[in-house]
Amino acid sequence: MAVYFEHSHKVKDLQARLKLFMEEYIYPNEEIYAEQINSHDRFSEIPPIMEELKQKAKEKGLWNLFLPEREFGLGLSNLEYAPLCEIIGRSHIAPEVFNCNAPDTGNMEVLLNYGSTQQQNEWLIPLLNGDIRSCFSMTEPDVASSDAVNISASIVRDGDEYVINGTKWWSTGALDPRCKIAIVMGVSDPAAPRHKQQSMVLVPIDTPGVEVKRSLNVFGYDHAPNGHAEIEFRDVRVPAGNILLGEGRGFEIAQGRLGPGRIHHCMRSIGAAERALELMMTRVRDREAFGGRLIDQGIVQQWIADSRMEIEQARLLTLKAAYMMDTVGNKKAKAEISMIKVIAPKMALNVVDRAIQAFGGAGVSDDFILAASWANLRTIRILDGPDEVHRRTVAREEIKKYK
Amino acid sequence: MAVYFEHSHKVKDLQARLKLFMEEYIYPNEEIYAEQINSHDRFSEIPPIMEELKQKAKEKGLWNLFLPEREFGLGLSNLEYAPLCEIIGRSHIAPEVFNCNAPDTGNMEVLLNYGSTQQQNEWLIPLLNGDIRSCFSMTEPDVASSDAVNISASIVRDGDEYVINGTKWWSTGALDPRCKIAIVMGVSDPAAPRHKQQSMVLVPIDTPGVEVKRSLNVFGYDHAPNGHAEIEFRDVRVPAGNILLGEGRGFEIAQGRLGPGRIHHCMRSIGAAERALELMMTRVRDREAFGGRLIDQGIVQQWIADSRMEIEQARLLTLKAAYMMDTVGNKKAKAEISMIKVIAPKMALNVVDRAIQAFGGAGVSDDFILAASWANLRTIRILDGPDEVHRRTVAREEIKKYK
Amino acid sequence: MAVYFEHSHKVKDLQARLKLFMEEYIYPNEEIYAEQINSHDRFSEIPPIMEELKQKAKEKGLWNLFLPEREFGLGLSNLEYAPLCEIIGRSHIAPEVFNCNAPDTGNMEVLLNYGSTQQQNEWLIPLLNGDIRSCFSMTEPDVASSDAVNISASIVRDGDEYVINGTKWWSTGALDPRCKIAIVMGVSDPAAPRHKQQSMVLVPIDTPGVEVKRSLNVFGYDHAPNGHAEIEFRDVRVPAGNILLGEGRGFEIAQGRLGPGRIHHCMRSIGAAERALELMMTRVRDREAFGGRLIDQGIVQQWIADSRMEIEQARLLTLKAAYMMDTVGNKKAKAEISMIKVIAPKMALNVVDRAIQAFGGAGVSDDFILAASWANLRTIRILDGPDEVHRRTVAREEIKKYK
Amino acid sequence: MAVYFEHSHKVKDLQARLKLFMEEYIYPNEEIYAEQINSHDRFSEIPPIMEELKQKAKEKGLWNLFLPEREFGLGLSNLEYAPLCEIIGRSHIAPEVFNCNAPDTGNMEVLLNYGSTQQQNEWLIPLLNGDIRSCFSMTEPDVASSDAVNISASIVRDGDEYVINGTKWWSTGALDPRCKIAIVMGVSDPAAPRHKQQSMVLVPIDTPGVEVKRSLNVFGYDHAPNGHAEIEFRDVRVPAGNILLGEGRGFEIAQGRLGPGRIHHCMRSIGAAERALELMMTRVRDREAFGGRLIDQGIVQQWIADSRMEIEQARLLTLKAAYMMDTVGNKKAKAEISMIKVIAPKMALNVVDRAIQAFGGAGVSDDFILAASWANLRTIRILDGPDEVHRRTVAREEIKKYK
Repeated sequence: MAVYFEHSHKVKDLQARLKLFMEEYIYPNEEIYAEQINSHDRFSEIPPIMEELKQKAKEKGLWNLFLPEREFGLGLSNLEYAPLCEIIGRSHIAPEVFNCNAPDTGNMEVLLNYGSTQQQNEWLIPLLNGDIRSCFSMTEPDVASSDAVNISASIVRDGDEYVINGTKWWSTGALDPRCKIAIVMGVSDPAAPRHKQQSMVLVPIDTPGVEVKRSLNVFGYDHAPNGHAEIEFRDVRVPAGNILLGEGRGFEIAQGRLGPGRIHHCMRSIGAAERALELMMTRVRDREAFGGRLIDQGIVQQWIADSRMEIEQARLLTLKAAYMMDTVGNKKAKAEISMIKVIAPKMALNVVDRAIQAFGGAGVSDDFILAASWANLRTIRILDGPDEVHRRTVAREEIKKYK
Repeated sequence: MAVYFEHSHKVKDLQARLKLFMEEYIYPNEEIYAEQINSHDRFSEIPPIMEELKQKAKEKGLWNLFLPEREFGLGLSNLEYAPLCEIIGRSHIAPEVFNCNAPDTGNMEVLLNYGSTQQQNEWLIPLLNGDIRSCFSMTEPDVASSDAVNISASIVRDGDEYVINGTKWWSTGALDPRCKIAIVMGVSDPAAPRHKQQSMVLVPIDTPGVEVKRSLNVFGYDHAPNGHAEIEFRDVRVPAGNILLGEGRGFEIAQGRLGPGRIHHCMRSIGAAERALELMMTRVRDREAFGGRLIDQGIVQQWIADSRMEIEQARLLTLKAAYMMDTVGNKKAKAEISMIKVIAPKMALNVVDRAIQAFGGAGVSDDFILAASWANLRTIRILDGPDEVHRRTVAREEIKKYK
Repeated sequence: MAVYFEHSHKVKDLQARLKLFMEEYIYPNEEIYAEQINSHDRFSEIPPIMEELKQKAKEKGLWNLFLPEREFGLGLSNLEYAPLCEIIGRSHIAPEVFNCNAPDTGNMEVLLNYGSTQQQNEWLIPLLNGDIRSCFSMTEPDVASSDAVNISASIVRDGDEYVINGTKWWSTGALDPRCKIAIVMGVSDPAAPRHKQQSMVLVPIDTPGVEVKRSLNVFGYDHAPNGHAEIEFRDVRVPAGNILLGEGRGFEIAQGRLGPGRIHHCMRSIGAAERALELMMTRVRDREAFGGRLIDQGIVQQWIADSRMEIEQARLLTLKAAYMMDTVGNKKAKAEISMIKVIAPKMALNVVDRAIQAFGGAGVSDDFILAASWANLRTIRILDGPDEVHRRTVAREEIKKYK
Repeated sequence: MAVYFEHSHKVKDLQARLKLFMEEYIYPNEEIYAEQINSHDRFSEIPPIMEELKQKAKEKGLWNLFLPEREFGLGLSNLEYAPLCEIIGRSHIAPEVFNCNAPDTGNMEVLLNYGSTQQQNEWLIPLLNGDIRSCFSMTEPDVASSDAVNISASIVRDGDEYVINGTKWWSTGALDPRCKIAIVMGVSDPAAPRHKQQSMVLVPIDTPGVEVKRSLNVFGYDHAPNGHAEIEFRDVRVPAGNILLGEGRGFEIAQGRLGPGRIHHCMRSIGAAERALELMMTRVRDREAFGGRLIDQGIVQQWIADSRMEIEQARLLTLKAAYMMDTVGNKKAKAEISMIKVIAPKMALNVVDRAIQAFGGAGVSDDFILAASWANLRTIRILDGPDEVHRRTVAREEIKKYK
C-alpha cells in the first residue's frame, strides 16, 4: 500500500453518474431557474424547476451524498465525497438539487450527531427529505464574529423554556419560504470558561419574537429565494427540550459542525474553478483580436497554465485534508482543514478573475456565471473563519512542533 | 524650477471647497439616493435628490470641473483636475452631481472638439447644463472589442442620410430616462485602411430602429437609473449632418476621447481607494477580536501600510501622466496613460479587497460602499482597453527605444 | 483501492534510515566539508570527508536510491523515491553522498537506458560505484538553449570517428578532478527534421581538443569542487562507437533524460524548503524584538502559515507527478512534470526568502545555508527548461482538450 | 506654482555630465576593476583603477555629490541628488568613484552634523577627500538589531577614556586597507530611558583590542576589497573626546543618520533597476527561440511593461520623499521614507529577477551584473530596518490620523 492517486470504482461510478446528471439536467436549467425567479417576487415563491430537479436526483440515487452515515445517505467518506462535491460545485443551483447545500448540510449533521430522537424526528427527517429548509444563526452584526467569544446573543433558561434575545445576520436560507427552523447560537452562561459560555438551541422560524428583518446582498446579488437574512430575536421562547446537547455545549457543536462545512466549501470552490477555466478555454479559443486567436497569446496561455497548476494543487490538498479527516479525525486534521480553507477560495477567485478578464464586459455581466461565482467565492474567504484566523491556526499547529 | 509636489493655491482652494461639499451634501445623501431609487421602478424615475444636488453644485461653482475649456468650465488642466476628480471619485453619486460622470464627460469633449456648431447647440449645451444625458455605443457583444478593427456595426451613406445597423452593449447611461443622444461608432468603409474604416455618428435615442433591449448587470448591480444597455440599431436613419468630423474619422475621435476618459477613471479609482482605506481604518480601530483591537494586529497593519504605499505610488503616477498630457500632449503621454490605466484600478481593487476582508460579512453586503466599489473598479480593468492591451502599449513604447 | 496518502512500509523504513543518517553524518559535516574545501585550492582536491561519507552510505545500503532498476539500485519507483530524495535535498552535500547528485544521476540513466554494453562497462559501472564523475554538455552560451533547435555545436562523422566542435557552458561537474566523461549534444544533420538533427556522444574529458575554459559562478558561489564549466570542444575526435543510440537520436535521449531529472530537482527543492522553514522556526522562536518573541508576531505567523501551505501543495503535486510517471509514463505525465518544474522551485524560493528575512543579516551570509540554498533554487527556474517553457507546455496540454 | 515633474537646469546639467562619465569611465572599467581585484589577494590591495577614477571624478567636479552642505559638496538638496544618485546606482563601482558610497556617506554626515571641530579635522576631512575609509558598527550577531534597544555592546566611561566591549558585524568597509575609523554604537547607560541608553564613539580601527575577525559573504560575494566585517571590541580604550555629541545621544544620531542613508539606497536601487531593464531589453531583442525574437513574446512584453511601471512609481515616490525631507524635514517625512525603503529594493529585485530569467544561465553567472545586483538589493530589504519595521512605521503614521 502506498500513496495512490486514483479514486475507487464506487467513486468513479458516482462521478460518471453525477457528470451525466449535470449535463442533462443542471446546466440546461440554470437559465430557466433564473427566469422562474425573475417571473415573480424573488423571495416568495420557489422556482418549480428546483423541486422537479430534486425529485429527479432522488430517483437517480444522487441524494444526500454529503452524509457519511449509511442510514440516510450513501455512507461516503469525506475523501469519497470530495470529487463528487466538486462536480456539484460547478453550478450554483446544483447543491440544493442534490440536498447538499449549506447551511442545511451542516444543520443536518448537527442534528444527526447531537440531536435528540425527538429533535431528529421533527427536523432532521424533513430536512433529509428536502421538504423543509433551515438556517444557522451564529454571526452577529455588531461584533467581530470570527472570535466566538464575542457573541452577545443570550439564551437564558426560564422555567421550562429558553428565552433568546439578540440580533443575527448572514442567516443564509432564512428568507426562503420553505425555511422552518433556525439553529441559534448564544451565550447561556457569561461566567463560564471561554468555550463553555455558549449554547445552541433550535428555534422554529415562526416562533413569536423571531423577526426576519431584511435580506443582505452579496455584491449586489440577493441569492433569492434562499437569501441571507438579518434576524432579530426578541424574547423568543422555546421549550427547554430544544437545546442541543445541553447548556454550554455550543462551541463544541460549532467546532464539530465547521470541519465538514469548511471542506465542502473548498470542494465546491474547486468545481467552480474548473467550470470557470472551461468557460475561459472555449471563449479564448473562439475569439480573435490583433490578428490571432486569444488562445495563442502568451499571456492567455500563462493564465491557462497558472489556473491549471493552482487547481491541481488545491484539489490534492483538499483530498489530503479529507483523507485525514477520515483517518485521524477532524481534530488532528485541523491544520489541513485550515490550509484548504485559505487556499481553495483564493485559488478559485484567481481562476474566475482571469476568466472574467478573458471575457471582457461579458465577464462582469450576468450572461455567464463568472461574476456570480466570483461573488460567492469571495464570501468564502470570510465565512466559517476569515483567512487570517485560519492562517493563524496553521501557524500555531506548526509552532507546536517547536516547543 | 524643479520637481515640485504641491498643488497650486487655486487647486487647494477647490479641493477644500469640494471636500466641504462632499461632507455636507454627498456622503449624507448616499443612502437617501439609494432609498429613492428603491422606492419605485429603478429605471423609470430619477431620484429627486440628484437634481437637488446638481443644482447645489452649480450654485457653488463646482460644475463641469473636468472641462479644460474656460468657456464652459473652470479651465482646469488635467493636472489641476486630478486631485479634484479624486475627491469626486470617493462617492458613486458624486460624479453626476458635479456633471463629471462618464460617459457624458467623454461625449461632451467629443462634441466640443469635433462637433459642428449645430451639433454643439443641439447636444453639447444641454449636456453641459446637465439637462440631458448621453451614451457611447462602441463595444459589441460578439467580438473582442479591445481591437477596434473587430467592430462590425455599419454606418452606410444613403442619400442625405446615414443608415446604422448593428448591436452594441455596455452603452452606459442609455437606460436613463434623461438619455437623449448616443454617439455610435461603426464601419463606414470596410475597404479603407485599418484605422480609416470607422466613423462616429450622433443618433438621437428616440430614432426609429433604436431598441434598448436590456440592462446589463455588473456583479449583480444594475446601476439604475443610468444602467448599462444592450442596444440594437436596425436600419436606423439619421441626417448626414449627424456624422462627427467626417467619414473615416471614428478611430481618430475614439483615440482623442479615450486619453482623458482613461485618466479620469484612474483619478476616481484613487478616491475610491482612499475612501475604502478610511472606512477600514475606522472599522479596525473600533472592533476587537482575540483579546485586542484589530488595528493593533500585525496583519492589519500590513494591510494599512501596503494600502497607503500603493495609493501614494498610483497617485503620483497619475499626476505625472496628467502633467505630461498637459505639457507634451496625449500622444506623447501614451505610455504613462496606459501605465496608470493598468495600475490605478488594480491598486484600488487591492485596497478595497483588504477593506472588505477587514469588514467581514458587512464588507460584501450593501451596508457599506465597499462591495459596490469593488464591482465598479473591476470593470475599469476591462473598459477603455483591458490591462493586457495597455501593458502591450507600455512594452511597445519601451521597445521603441531599442530599435 | 482509493486515493491514499500514506507511504509504504518500505518507504517509511527508508525515510527513517535516511533521516537518521542525515542527523548523524550529514548535518554535522556540512561545515567540515566547507572547511576542507577552503583549506586548499577549491577545485583541485576533493574534501576527504566526502569520500568517507560515501563509503558510510554504501555500507548502510543508502546508495543509488534514485535508480529504478533493481540490478544496481533499490528498484524504487519515482513515487517511492520522492520522499527520500526530498530528505536528501535538505543538505547540499547529501546528494553526492548517496550518489544521487545531478548530473551524474541523469547521465547514469542515459547510459543505463541507451548505452551499449561496452559504454556501460566503461562509464556506467564506475559512475554507479561513485568512482568517477561526469558532466552533461548541452547548453550553449550564444543561443537561447531552451529551444533545443538552437543548438549549434556540431558532431560530424569522419571515417571511424566523430568530430566535435562547439562551445558549451553550465557543464556542471566538469571542473571536478574526478570527472572523466562528458555527454555532449550537438547537431549531426542540420538538414534532418527539427528533432532528428541532434546526436549525443560520449567524450572522455581528457580527449585532445577538450578545453575546460573557466568556472561559472552562481550568485557568487563557485560550487567547488564540482563547479559549472564552460568547455570548448575544438576538433575533438572520438571513436564512432561513442555515439549514444545512433545519429539523430539526441533529442529523444534528452527528453528521456529530462523527465526524472526535472522531478528530482523538485523533490530536492521541497527538502530545501522544509529545512529553511525549520531554520526559520527555531530562529523566530529564539529571538526577541519590540517586546516579544518574533514567533508571536502576526507577520511572522503569516510567513509560517504560507510556507507550510505552499510546501504541502507542492509536495502533493510532486507525488502525483511521480505517481503518473510510474503508472502512465513520462510522456503522459508531461503536463504534471512541467507543473511541478514551475511550482517547486518557486515555492522553495518563497520559503527560503522568508527565512532569510527572518534571519536578517545572518540570512544573506554563509553562516546558514539559506543564501546558498536560495542561489541553488534560483537556477532551477532556468535549467532543464525555464518556467516560461514549462508553463507553455501546461497550457498546450490543456488546450488539446478543447480542439 | 503647481506639481511639477521636470528637474531644474542645474540637475539636468549634472545628469548629463554624470551619464557621460558613466559611459566613458565607469561601464568600460567594471570588468577591469574585477580583474584587478582577482589578480592578487582580494582584500589586501586596492585596484589601481579605482583611485584613477576617483581622481578623474574630482577633476570633473563630480565629487561628494551627496553632501547637502555647500562648503564641501555641491550643496544639492535631496531632491536634486536623487536623479544623480540613481545614475550612480547603475554600477557597483560608481558610488566609491564619486565618494558617494555607504557607509562613508552616512559617516561623513554624522561627523559634519554632530562631530566636534577636532573630530572633523581628524576624520571628516580625509573622508571628504577620499583618502581614508570608515565603517559603521551598530548591528550585532546575537540579537535582532532591528530593535535598537536590543544592542548589547557597552561603552563605559573610565576616567578620561571610554572602554568599549562587544561584537559587531556587517561593519561594511572594515576589511578595506584604507579603512581607518569606526563609528561604534553601544550602551552607555542601561538604566536610562529606552532611547537614551546608547552612545556613539569614534574608534580608530588600529586601536588595541579591535579585532576584525572575518569577512561575511553576501550570497557568496565577498565584496572585496571593502567587505563586510565581524569585529570584536575587547576592552578597547579611546579618549573621552571621541564620543559623538555626548553620552546617551546614540539613538538620536542613528536616526539622523538613517534618513538620508535609507533614501540613498532607494535612489541607487532605481538605477540598478533601470540598468537591469536596459540589459534585458537588449538581450531579448537579440535572442530568438521557438521561431521568433524573445522581445515579441507576450510574456516578455509583460515583463517589460511591469518593470517600467514599477520603476516609474518607485522613482516618483522616492522623489516625493526627497522633496518632503527637503521641505518639512526628515521627521515629518518619516512615513514617506519608510515607504520607499520598502518599495524601492523590492521593485528593483523584481526587475532584476525578470532580467535574470530573460538571460537564462548567463543571468545567474557573473558574466553580467544581474546576479551581483540581485544579491546587493536583497540586503537592502534587511539593512537600516527590515521591511517589516518600515511597514509598521507607515501603518503607525496612518493610524495617528484616526486617534
